[in-house]
Amino acid sequence: MFSAWAQSSGAQVVRDAFGNVFAIRGDWERAPGIMLGSHLDTVPGGGAYDGALGVVAGLSVLDDWDEAVPLCVAAFRAEEATRAPVGRLGSSVYAGVVACGRAAEIVRADVDADLAGLPVAAPSAPARYLELHIEQGPRLEAQKRSIAAVIGIAGYTRLRFDVEGRADHVGSTPMTMRRDALAAAAEIILHVERIGSSPADVATVGALSVSPNVVGVVPAHAELAVDVRSITDEQRTAAVRALEGAVDEVSRRRGVTVRTEEMANVPAVAFAPEVVAAVERAAEIAGASTARMMSGANHDAGNLARLCPAGMIFVPSAGGRSHTPDEYTSDEDCRLGALVLGVAARLLAQDRKAEMQA
Amino acid sequence: MFSAWAQSSGAQVVRDAFGNVFAIRGDWERAPGIMLGSHLDTVPGGGAYDGALGVVAGLSVLDDWDEAVPLCVAAFRAEEATRAPVGRLGSSVYAGVVACGRAAEIVRADVDADLAGLPVAAPSAPARYLELHIEQGPRLEAQKRSIAAVIGIAGYTRLRFDVEGRADHVGSTPMTMRRDALAAAAEIILHVERIGSSPADVATVGALSVSPNVVGVVPAHAELAVDVRSITDEQRTAAVRALEGAVDEVSRRRGVTVRTEEMANVPAVAFAPEVVAAVERAAEIAGASTARMMSGANHDAGNLARLCPAGMIFVPSAGGRSHTPDEYTSDEDCRLGALVLGVAARLLAQDRKAEMQA
Repeated sequence: MFSAWAQSSGAQVVRDAFGNVFAIRGDWERAPGIMLGSHLDTVPGGGAYDGALGVVAGLSVLDDWDEAVPLCVAAFRAEEATRAPVGRLGSSVYAGVVACGRAAEIVRADVDADLAGLPVAAPSAPARYLELHIEQGPRLEAQKRSIAAVIGIAGYTRLRFDVEGRADHVGSTPMTMRRDALAAAAEIILHVERIGSSPADVATVGALSVSPNVVGVVPAHAELAVDVRSITDEQRTAAVRALEGAVDEVSRRRGVTVRTEEMANVPAVAFAPEVVAAVERAAEIAGASTARMMSGANHDAGNLARLCPAGMIFVPSAGGRSHTPDEYTSDEDCRLGALVLGVAARLLAQDRKAEMQA
Repeated sequence: MFSAWAQSSGAQVVRDAFGNVFAIRGDWERAPGIMLGSHLDTVPGGGAYDGALGVVAGLSVLDDWDEAVPLCVAAFRAEEATRAPVGRLGSSVYAGVVACGRAAEIVRADVDADLAGLPVAAPSAPARYLELHIEQGPRLEAQKRSIAAVIGIAGYTRLRFDVEGRADHVGSTPMTMRRDALAAAAEIILHVERIGSSPADVATVGALSVSPNVVGVVPAHAELAVDVRSITDEQRTAAVRALEGAVDEVSRRRGVTVRTEEMANVPAVAFAPEVVAAVERAAEIAGASTARMMSGANHDAGNLARLCPAGMIFVPSAGGRSHTPDEYTSDEDCRLGALVLGVAARLLAQDRKAEMQA
């Protein structure tokens, strides 16, 4: 469907070896232009908007495009971490962050048969990248704004805490003689919540497993998976340090041992001020109310920002819901988002044209 | 082995329909006497002492017993909740608390083939019951005592709390707009710990399951299994009420819903003062240092207390450990426990003899 729509707008459709698909208007190889994109995959039990909106809106910009500055609409593969606990694989391959062979191994699946007929030719790095996406959070709705100019993507640290206490009989072991791993974990969970307000921007214990996990035994072991995010890496480092200090205090006071493992440490991405400004000007032209915000979630744009000045546009998610069939953005907001995307792409193309002529 | 040892001491061995086994000296049916007992089953990965000690020590009392007052050593079946989340089945059947057919259904297994040859004849209710058991807790060791005269068994309430929050993206949902089921559960866990110090005697969250339980999603659901114990039912009721109040406050403040289900409500058992006194006198005669204590764990004696004046003797558990291969009670403490059991049985037999002559 992507190919058919793109071709009907006069674009040439190609793919790379991993299965990212690109619709191009103009002579990209002579002078790369503006790339608009997002992803078409979604999570099991997900909604209709996460990813697809940005690709479809991109395709709508192909019509009436002045090819003096080439335009490329990208559909990145495997953005969601569904086959493996690693997301954004397609754009990671395109940005050279992950080798194609390694990415193919991770998803354990060949390129879709549908793509077999497309010429294999990855377009070179774009001059600018812009991505429209649903917010997947409640802020635009709460602020009654239609468009967000996204200023960057929060960095995140993922930690695993292994809390080792001691199994004891719940009836015969006095409270003062226990080393309850779950009670220690409970304190850690509340510490994580506290640093999520400050100095981090958000922090969450998403997963906890307990053993032996039966009603009659004081928990001997608890394993927590923690996610800490901040728009600045300094805040994030300070938050992780504060958390580790708190965990240390809990462990000493309760006589449990806590082993800490850093599972991920991904720096924040600051989007290009010129792209943020183009989004805001486009929104103004479109008559849309705007807000500036950071993205707490990661996106393909985070990878593209390694290649060129990049940015993102958010449109509201009803109730902040995403990754559920309840995911919803009104037709009006979708259309407004696509309009702002198209206008911003033209503004960026003007800059690029000046650059090419210089 | 139980049968062989019992028969070599001149006892007659019988069983009941569920598979409880009894070794009897004297004419029990004419006038029931003193029953000593415990269980021979243990948990998978358990130790050598939990249950078996009380049975073996009971057998040691059969020799040189004056049959004027009959003696019965009972090995109750299925004391541990290993085949089903229900323990003390054998003694429950013997005490008439659970029907034999229902108990057989629960354990989903026939009586051991070993027992097939034994006459099926349950002895009538004893005049007194006494059980030697390892403490399965750290108190005797901490107090450097060898023998505990157990004054009763704590009652317990088991609750399940289902906390329903909302799944959200950990990156894009501000802390103030979350309904984190796990953070709410963490507060509940610490409340349970608090009421475990007062007004309850102990309280524990032994099991917790979280969903979706992945690092990238704010937990939508958490289910906690809570155990609250007190030596008095009044304290226990007050503790449960305090906990429910705290849970209510957490749920309102955090915008989560909590469904509470009572899974068990077992009253406390007070042992007979005359049996407690006999244990203390026997310990004095044996030259053992004693402590009075409640049992936080439940035992077969809790069922037998429905039939007759009953009591228990504890011997120390090294490090308080039980239900692990590390379970250990020194030979010296085992011998002392068996000696106190034998002396106390004889003291109780004197009382019984007077009763029979009256």
